[in-house]
Amino acid sequence: MKKIVTVSREFGSGGRETGKRLAEALGFNYVDSEIIQAVAEQTKLDENYLRDKLEQGIANYPVTIGRTFSQVKSISNSAMLIAKQHNIIRDIAAKSDCVIVGRGADVALADLKPFKIFVYADMRSKIARIRSRAQTDEILTDKEIERKIRHIDGARKSTHDLYSPRAWGDKAGYNICINTTDTDVKSIIKPLSEIIAAYFK
Amino acid sequence: MKKIVTVSREFGSGGRETGKRLAEALGFNYVDSEIIQAVAEQTKLDENYLRDKLEQGIANYPVTIGRTFSQVKSISNSAMLIAKQHNIIRDIAAKSDCVIVGRGADVALADLKPFKIFVYADMRSKIARIRSRAQTDEILTDKEIERKIRHIDGARKSTHDLYSPRAWGDKAGYNICINTTDTDVKSIIKPLSEIIAAYFK
Repeated sequence: MKKIVTVSREFGSGGRETGKRLAEALGFNYVDSEIIQAVAEQTKLDENYLRDKLEQGIANYPVTIGRTFSQVKSISNSAMLIAKQHNIIRDIAAKSDCVIVGRGADVALADLKPFKIFVYADMRSKIARIRSRAQTDEILTDKEIERKIRHIDGARKSTHDLYSPRAWGDKAGYNICINTTDTDVKSIIKPLSEIIAAYFK
Repeated sequence: MKKIVTVSREFGSGGRETGKRLAEALGFNYVDSEIIQAVAEQTKLDENYLRDKLEQGIANYPVTIGRTFSQVKSISNSAMLIAKQHNIIRDIAAKSDCVIVGRGADVALADLKPFKIFVYADMRSKIARIRSRAQTDEILTDKEIERKIRHIDGARKSTHDLYSPRAWGDKAGYNICINTTDTDVKSIIKPLSEIIAAYFK
């Protein structure tokens, strides 16, 4: 069986960087854009459209509330795309040892016993991280960045929680949870990869 | 400023072992029974009584519910002992780099920026761990062990939550949370001590 590491993360916590660097340290395949590419190929839909659609996820409305036809259609389309993405993730994970960031991989691959990481940080630190990597022409206030973080994490949570018995970010669902507040991600990669190696021994 | 590591843990998750081994790996002082000894000395109370009393903590009754005089007395005694314990922990932590398991040290020392670890595991694994270290004449059913775990962790949580703005076990309150389910604690000590060393650099 392949060795799989999944990285779930709060937006702005450095989860993607952690995943990339871990893949390098472990000599595992870093899986990212090839997932969207495969979904695009199978559905004949545009990659950018898919990226947006999959990022929005499925809002967690109460099931009983009345919905318009277009809402129902949108939800069923999203659900179909997420299911397709799950299948593609399973195909890709069967091929080589790999690290997958986000994309509900922890849920899609649960029965393959991945090593599951959750990366998080406090709000101040996430705002600073997002600001440091923003384009120079993109000027957002702290309040706007915070709203964006809450919006993106809200979508991640509601989508995750539809497919998993455990809540997104509930530590019980992960092997290790790492707080990157005031932490340079680079400094924890080597020891973290050793903990992962011990898990797969 | 001294380097301080606090280990909070679910009962049966291997937190104490983690703390002891970490202290050894880091060359830090492992602080445990000397806390109770100091409280006993200052209060002229028996160590075993204190151990029990501090382990029970303070049950988290709603403040508005009517209480008998003996309940009020018991709560105020416990609160006094916990405050004394906090002060003693601060004195001890000022003396040398150290690892402290439990005893509300993460709360008592919050302003000294300790590296805070939370160790947890799933119920099945905690029951197995407790069973493996039990005395041979102590035969408990799984249900009884589970009840004991919930009781002890409940006391830890309610006491912690009286003194801290964050809930016991809420990952936001820790630098790292480690799930020891199906994990040999020994295998993670070296990398974990490297993560801690990086934090204090």
